[in-house]
Amino acid sequence: MALIVQKFGGTSVGSIERIEAVADLVVKTKQQGHQVVVVLSAMSGETNRLIELAKQIDSRPSARELDVLLTTGEQVSVSLLAMAIIKRGHSAVSLLADQVNIRTDNMFGKARIEEIAATRLKHELEHNRIAIIAGFQGRDIEGNITTLGRGGTDTSAVEIAGAINADECQIYTDVDGVYTTDPRIEPNARRMSHVTFEEMLEMASLGAKVLHIRSVEAAGKYNIPLRVLSSFNPDQGTLISFEEPDVQANIVSGIAFNRDESLIYVNGVHQGTENLAKILKLFAEFGIEIDMINQVNHNFEKIDYAFTVHTNDFEQALEILTSNQGGISAESIKGISNVAKVSAVGVGMKSHSGVASLFFNALADENIKVMLVSTSEIKISVLIDEKYLELAVRALHKVFLTENE
Amino acid sequence: MALIVQKFGGTSVGSIERIEAVADLVVKTKQQGHQVVVVLSAMSGETNRLIELAKQIDSRPSARELDVLLTTGEQVSVSLLAMAIIKRGHSAVSLLADQVNIRTDNMFGKARIEEIAATRLKHELEHNRIAIIAGFQGRDIEGNITTLGRGGTDTSAVEIAGAINADECQIYTDVDGVYTTDPRIEPNARRMSHVTFEEMLEMASLGAKVLHIRSVEAAGKYNIPLRVLSSFNPDQGTLISFEEPDVQANIVSGIAFNRDESLIYVNGVHQGTENLAKILKLFAEFGIEIDMINQVNHNFEKIDYAFTVHTNDFEQALEILTSNQGGISAESIKGISNVAKVSAVGVGMKSHSGVASLFFNALADENIKVMLVSTSEIKISVLIDEKYLELAVRALHKVFLTENE
Repeated sequence: MALIVQKFGGTSVGSIERIEAVADLVVKTKQQGHQVVVVLSAMSGETNRLIELAKQIDSRPSARELDVLLTTGEQVSVSLLAMAIIKRGHSAVSLLADQVNIRTDNMFGKARIEEIAATRLKHELEHNRIAIIAGFQGRDIEGNITTLGRGGTDTSAVEIAGAINADECQIYTDVDGVYTTDPRIEPNARRMSHVTFEEMLEMASLGAKVLHIRSVEAAGKYNIPLRVLSSFNPDQGTLISFEEPDVQANIVSGIAFNRDESLIYVNGVHQGTENLAKILKLFAEFGIEIDMINQVNHNFEKIDYAFTVHTNDFEQALEILTSNQGGISAESIKGISNVAKVSAVGVGMKSHSGVASLFFNALADENIKVMLVSTSEIKISVLIDEKYLELAVRALHKVFLTENE
Repeated sequence: MALIVQKFGGTSVGSIERIEAVADLVVKTKQQGHQVVVVLSAMSGETNRLIELAKQIDSRPSARELDVLLTTGEQVSVSLLAMAIIKRGHSAVSLLADQVNIRTDNMFGKARIEEIAATRLKHELEHNRIAIIAGFQGRDIEGNITTLGRGGTDTSAVEIAGAINADECQIYTDVDGVYTTDPRIEPNARRMSHVTFEEMLEMASLGAKVLHIRSVEAAGKYNIPLRVLSSFNPDQGTLISFEEPDVQANIVSGIAFNRDESLIYVNGVHQGTENLAKILKLFAEFGIEIDMINQVNHNFEKIDYAFTVHTNDFEQALEILTSNQGGISAESIKGISNVAKVSAVGVGMKSHSGVASLFFNALADENIKVMLVSTSEIKISVLIDEKYLELAVRALHKVFLTENE
């Protein structure tokens, strides 16, 4: 008998028919002898419907009240699933954030979980009930309703799994796992049966979009194996755990990419770290996050910097730097918005030299110019012209991930 | 400065436009210098939409889970109204049952309020905020969500008014007050500017349908004046309080009626109270409530009984009695379902003899046969053939309530 947390996203509970299918799946797990905790999103479309209602009243509605409004979406789905499971003759109970004591800070719309007491949840499990918990929501210390922001239900599921020391946290979604790269770009992309937390963190942050980075971090923190599965076809999936893949595994596990990057050059800055500090402070003041940073020293007096920012922040970042050009002593400031980042990720890299050589050769063979490079123990990332993105992904996938014939 | 509770029903918050109008009305009250607590129903149609969802899963859904589902309706309306008030530059905060500590028993779907701590509510009022509370909902002692059943939001409003010792509880609805009788039957029906709690209790229980009887009882218990108003035209209304109307007032305040009654005769029952006790026990076992009871003793051996029950219970009541005919020693059992009850209600009756005479003369003049009579200090009720209902209502309204020319 294992204690399993199963999370279902909006499309998995998007209709009464889908909710019935989820009920069957949950009951099947229970009948296999496991204790089951279910964490749900709102039915797909519901959150947008509610946001529309709010926007009709105020284009910038009160953040506290928006959270009160949005959390009704999960409340609807958990009660409906509980009804469907009870109808199948099993004991089930829906629970909201306050009933599970999911305490967060008071950052409405993007709260972070601080503590989960879970006393009642454990009580329900001891009484052999299937607990169905509303994801995405919490309560601050004063009892106000909060929401966790993007990817919130994944985070709820993993944090709840941590609080009750679950054996596995299963994330059911509309894809059947994590792929070696996006199958829409590379038809030969394969589902990975197993990746490590470290690899998944790199994947998530690089745009794999299957799991939100915060939920992967949390699963790593609690050391709870995560499994990504399709609710339409739950027999396969991808396991994410601390276990290293076996020796036969590929050196590179996946090719990740991100189209939403833009590049900014700040050239001819006077020597001295204080100027870089000034630039970073400007970005921080306006809430602009920087991904890659590159520095080239021309001589003892001048430095060229290159930064990448999210494309949404590109115009503002350029404006801020330009209006402070004197303060940061830059000779010129310019930007390129149509760039993309491509990365090869894999724990196998740690023990294999020569990966970088293969990586750059593959790009060189296709005459793809690299604008910026960034590396870690388990990944190599490069910035390239966006129009070569698909070509680069396919070239790298072929070198590192095509099965030997 | 007064402390005012304002309750708005489903049609009053039935669209974004209506919610904006309610926001204007609430802000106006606040600007007059009052402290304001608002209690809301779900947007009209929403509760039915949610019930439909539940029925798609289970024709008899879990009562606990149905309450979890239905309470989202009020959560949506309170958050939207709070947004609309905040947009108008006033401080407002939506509060749910657990945040106001509305503790009920655990009878899902028809819970009763046991206690309202209201600590946080008082705190919000002290900080000059408009508190907007979700009606219809409560929490049992274990923290489960409950709903109060029919008329629940009125009850919430009055109980909250009692808990904070409000100066007045205003019930905004789609009619502008309590009428002397139903204007659809008697076009000369007039809005009453003032009725007593006692009169209103008789009105409510006899089918006036403007206020649920439980909310009138609760307002009487806490001695909090109730005012029924139209949210479309809030300048008029009906005040319900313990004050007796002035001497100019009519002897009879209103003509109430109820079409949902059915009559059952149990004839030729052996003398002895134990047989009546047996009949009443049978009704109680099957949850059938009796309204009127009549008894005629033929002689020292045989008694005829007549009972009225809700028409929904008529068939079942007849069956139960017939299958127990021997046990209750009845010679015959028969029923008439197409009957109606008409009542004249008024605290003025207490001090006026001759009311009964006027009442029965009015019916006799129209050749309306009376099947059953029931009286209290402040009302006379009769059971008549349903087809004469409109005629009886008009005749009685003319005798007691037509203004002198």
